Amino acid sequence: MRYELYYWPGIQGRGEFVRLALEAAEADYVDVARRSGRGMGTPAMMRMLESATEACLPFAPPFLKAGDQIIGQTANILLFLGGRHGLAPQDEAGRLWVHQLQLTVTDFVAEIHDTHHPIAASLYYEDQKAEAAMRAEDFLKHRVPKFLGYFGKVLAHNPHKSGYMAGGELSYVDLSMFQLIEGLRYAFPNAMARIAPKHRGLIDLHDRVAQHPPVARYLASDRRIPFNEEGIFRHYPELDA
Amino acid sequence: MRYELYYWPGIQGRGEFVRLALEAAEADYVDVARRSGRGMGTPAMMRMLESATEACLPFAPPFLKAGDQIIGQTANILLFLGGRHGLAPQDEAGRLWVHQLQLTVTDFVAEIHDTHHPIAASLYYEDQKAEAAMRAEDFLKHRVPKFLGYFGKVLAHNPHKSGYMAGGELSYVDLSMFQLIEGLRYAFPNAMARIAPKHRGLIDLHDRVAQHPPVARYLASDRRIPFNEEGIFRHYPELDA
Repeated sequence: MRYELYYWPGIQGRGEFVRLALEAAEADYVDVARRSGRGMGTPAMMRMLESATEACLPFAPPFLKAGDQIIGQTANILLFLGGRHGLAPQDEAGRLWVHQLQLTVTDFVAEIHDTHHPIAASLYYEDQKAEAAMRAEDFLKHRVPKFLGYFGKVLAHNPHKSGYMAGGELSYVDLSMFQLIEGLRYAFPNAMARIAPKHRGLIDLHDRVAQHPPVARYLASDRRIPFNEEGIFRHYPELDA
Repeated sequence: MRYELYYWPGIQGRGEFVRLALEAAEADYVDVARRSGRGMGTPAMMRMLESATEACLPFAPPFLKAGDQIIGQTANILLFLGGRHGLAPQDEAGRLWVHQLQLTVTDFVAEIHDTHHPIAASLYYEDQKAEAAMRAEDFLKHRVPKFLGYFGKVLAHNPHKSGYMAGGELSYVDLSMFQLIEGLRYAFPNAMARIAPKHRGLIDLHDRVAQHPPVARYLASDRRIPFNEEGIFRHYPELDA
């Protein structure tokens, strides 16, 4: 079965956590909004979001079409894919644990977004720069160390001592750890140069994921959209003093 | 088996979504931080959060202990409980769908929280009042109608026409809808007096959930903590002009 991924075509954004899982699993998928032609492109995505009849209507991209099933919410898509593609433990407790970690990634991502949009997503960054500077300062001082400290502790305490976050093998939350480190380094290079050395385990995990052959092939391809100032991770030098 | 719920003792907060599910299921549970005595109280919760050995360490409350298993993240706890207590559809697609809706509740709750803390959770509301006024204005104008509009559409499109959000019976996301309406009315009575009439289906669902006998008994008991200005839903009149 060929999956259909629906996400904004010009950014990594939240869709990237799903793209990384599909790529790591070498799953057959089409990135609908990035294709042109019949039934493709952003209009195809908007038609589904605006459907007046769809019972399982997604609130926002990303969402995944798997046969007749439409699955929304990044972490929920990963829960679905993880079980099918060996990117999560097989037992129920293990699956819930990896999902719990992914939901903490979700929380972190929302806070990362709000460093540049603390007042309203409906306003431009330029209209909330002063507030963004305050929020980013607190974020870098308190929240990044708290989240990375937590994830590093989980990694260190994994009873499997596998070098992965949970269980003995690569799971989708490892892919998300890679993306968090990659994105934070893009958005906040100065702060991360200071913070990252305190989180050696996560940096090692990031490097190991980057070398996982299907991930390495993906990162070197044009399917990987470069970071830019439209996504979750944005580099505004004034927020990274 | 008696569940142990760990959450801050003085607020409804995120823990309330779990309390409502435990109560609706008439599950046997102890609200650990609200009890005194050996192994009880907030110190018992803090010991688990600060554990140097626990493999499945939660990032934050609420978390649930079920036998040897520790489960964190509100939506993940509900995923776990829903399957065990008939508060979610039995089939996998139905379970993912209810969970997807719950993750959209999670996003909404984060935005509700940030109306009074747009800059930093580490600062007092009083230190970010001006920014909170801006964020709350946008929230009431754009975000509440968007989220309630979405949830109302889902309710109306449920192919089971059951009057519940998903499938033919009460699920945990119906309980969360009740809590959202209840909390928004507490925090923003003026705005909700204007907005709620446009979302009649959700208001009817709220009323139906409130009359579900185990929920009604819970709401009338002293186990239900009143809303206050320490939780997610806070009534600051200046944010509800």
